[in-house]
Amino acid sequence: MQSLQLDLGDRSYAIHIGSKLISRGDLITPLLEGKQILIVTNTTVGPIYLETLKAGLLESRADLEIEICILPDGEAYKDIAHLEKIWNRLLEAGFNRKATLLALGGGVIGDMSGFAAACYQRGVNFIQLPTTLLSQVDSSVGGKTGVNHPLGKNMLGAFWQPRLVLADTSSLQTLPKRELAAGMAEVIKYGLLGDSELLLWLETHIQGLMQGDEQLLTEAIARSCQCKATIVAEDEREAGQRALLNLGHTFGHAIETEMGYGQWLHGEAVAAGMWLAADLSRRLGWLEASDCERVEKLLKAAQLPVRPPKEMTVDQFLKHMAVDKKNIDGQLRLVLLEHLGKAKLHSLTELEELKACLNSALGKA
Amino acid sequence: MQSLQLDLGDRSYAIHIGSKLISRGDLITPLLEGKQILIVTNTTVGPIYLETLKAGLLESRADLEIEICILPDGEAYKDIAHLEKIWNRLLEAGFNRKATLLALGGGVIGDMSGFAAACYQRGVNFIQLPTTLLSQVDSSVGGKTGVNHPLGKNMLGAFWQPRLVLADTSSLQTLPKRELAAGMAEVIKYGLLGDSELLLWLETHIQGLMQGDEQLLTEAIARSCQCKATIVAEDEREAGQRALLNLGHTFGHAIETEMGYGQWLHGEAVAAGMWLAADLSRRLGWLEASDCERVEKLLKAAQLPVRPPKEMTVDQFLKHMAVDKKNIDGQLRLVLLEHLGKAKLHSLTELEELKACLNSALGKA
Repeated sequence: MQSLQLDLGDRSYAIHIGSKLISRGDLITPLLEGKQILIVTNTTVGPIYLETLKAGLLESRADLEIEICILPDGEAYKDIAHLEKIWNRLLEAGFNRKATLLALGGGVIGDMSGFAAACYQRGVNFIQLPTTLLSQVDSSVGGKTGVNHPLGKNMLGAFWQPRLVLADTSSLQTLPKRELAAGMAEVIKYGLLGDSELLLWLETHIQGLMQGDEQLLTEAIARSCQCKATIVAEDEREAGQRALLNLGHTFGHAIETEMGYGQWLHGEAVAAGMWLAADLSRRLGWLEASDCERVEKLLKAAQLPVRPPKEMTVDQFLKHMAVDKKNIDGQLRLVLLEHLGKAKLHSLTELEELKACLNSALGKA
Repeated sequence: MQSLQLDLGDRSYAIHIGSKLISRGDLITPLLEGKQILIVTNTTVGPIYLETLKAGLLESRADLEIEICILPDGEAYKDIAHLEKIWNRLLEAGFNRKATLLALGGGVIGDMSGFAAACYQRGVNFIQLPTTLLSQVDSSVGGKTGVNHPLGKNMLGAFWQPRLVLADTSSLQTLPKRELAAGMAEVIKYGLLGDSELLLWLETHIQGLMQGDEQLLTEAIARSCQCKATIVAEDEREAGQRALLNLGHTFGHAIETEMGYGQWLHGEAVAAGMWLAADLSRRLGWLEASDCERVEKLLKAAQLPVRPPKEMTVDQFLKHMAVDKKNIDGQLRLVLLEHLGKAKLHSLTELEELKACLNSALGKA
């Protein structure tokens, strides 16, 4: 087990990464305030791990009141209606503000459980048990929670930190290859935005990682979490450099929103978005063509898309990008690359280069 | 204009109390981060004050983008469905995270706007413009926001502080007498729970207050806000003594929930709840019968109910009180009175006295 700490004063917490952590109720029960637990999971992950998790918890503390909320699986259900199902479950069970939510699943379950916890009785504790690579390296760490709205992804939410993150690497062995690739997009993102050594390491080990080598995966997760923890500790509420973690996401959110949540996996949309960010950075004179080729090669080796869906139009991109949370008073702001391993937040004063980049990527120029 | 400050570090804010403050856009515009403003109001208050508020804002800063969201009036609409209407309005207008919400109305509008602001893009600023006595002395100050759920009042929400509170005392001149009385219940609450001098002052001036004397009302609002600000500054997230502000509310919420939100005004339910709290305190040996008579006399002079609705049963009270946010692991906790002017949080280890108190008040014993 590798462990690291996210330092946020009295809201600091540990991130543990290792094999079979879902059974380690002893890591969870010391952090409970009361004895009421709601496990939130989905129809895919629940049947595989629920019994192991429950047994571990009860072995560590026999008097727990454990309730379960099972949601349908997928980004398409990350909405207010399903958030209400979690709240209904908590209220039907008569749970109080000492209750703890356990999020057992991928990023959708983690984001929704965290937001549900943030708002239930004005805030109860929650713990992340991420079971996908994407959620282990990204969404479970840092306290961003939320749901989607038909007019924009993650438009409703809260900053609400978990009390603990347990990343069980064994769960990656049963993860579909497409989801492993989607998670790898976020790992590559850390290399591109802030850690050129990680980028080199990934270029060396991408084959082994994609074959599911657990030791390499543990290393990749720990390095990714460390990169994220450092940034979040300095800028919890995204007043500044935390926005750099959104590399590829402004384009990616446009793809997800336009195609309908769940058609493109989040990581796939981010992969295409990172390539667009690299290409736009080249057009602005910061990257070389060879840098873009390196990005493209690594993404392809991770079995990720490197172009946006051909059926989308430039206008659709611009429409969705106009409501991005990073924008200020109508000014479009994008995370771009100064060089490989260093991102920067850039205000686009005019849209010509962006339109050329999108037209080219969509095969329309 | 009287002014005071709520001290919460970098989330501190001013509370101004005085005549015609709704027109003072110059007090608001220096606090804006961007130029986007959504005014949230209701069908009763909107027609009276919207134009004045807008004109004052635009006079102070001409380039503002002002959008309006008008909700139906009443506690019955303080729910997730109407919260979504606010979010839809923000997203349709393409508002970003520098936008500011202005809550123009009573406690329902303030609580909902604050919660909407807390969750929109994970948190935007909001400003309170309370137009009822109840919201001026209580709900607009302290950052408790939220909506009701069919299974419990204020069960969903956030701690989210406004950037400013402007309590316009002129708005009380058009307030229905029943709502003035409901607000006076919260003023009396501050006297009972922590300020025996305020209690004496109220006993002296209750007739003038109920006749709408603006000077007396300004004094009552300022003293109430000061009492609340002191408590909130010491315990923002209700880890301890902030719970004392819930005097009468555990009983009151049971009345509101059982009767259907909006049948009994919040202040009316709290008035009956404070009498129940006083009577239970007497049964536990802390108050004298003469103390309870003083409470009853003052509440009656403020034209408030002093008994719960006769159609309710003891079991209904117990059911609703069991899900109160102050409870811990099934143990019922109530704010009771050690003496007039001093409240305490009490864990009920057995229910006999409570049942006797309720049976008697409901005319069933």
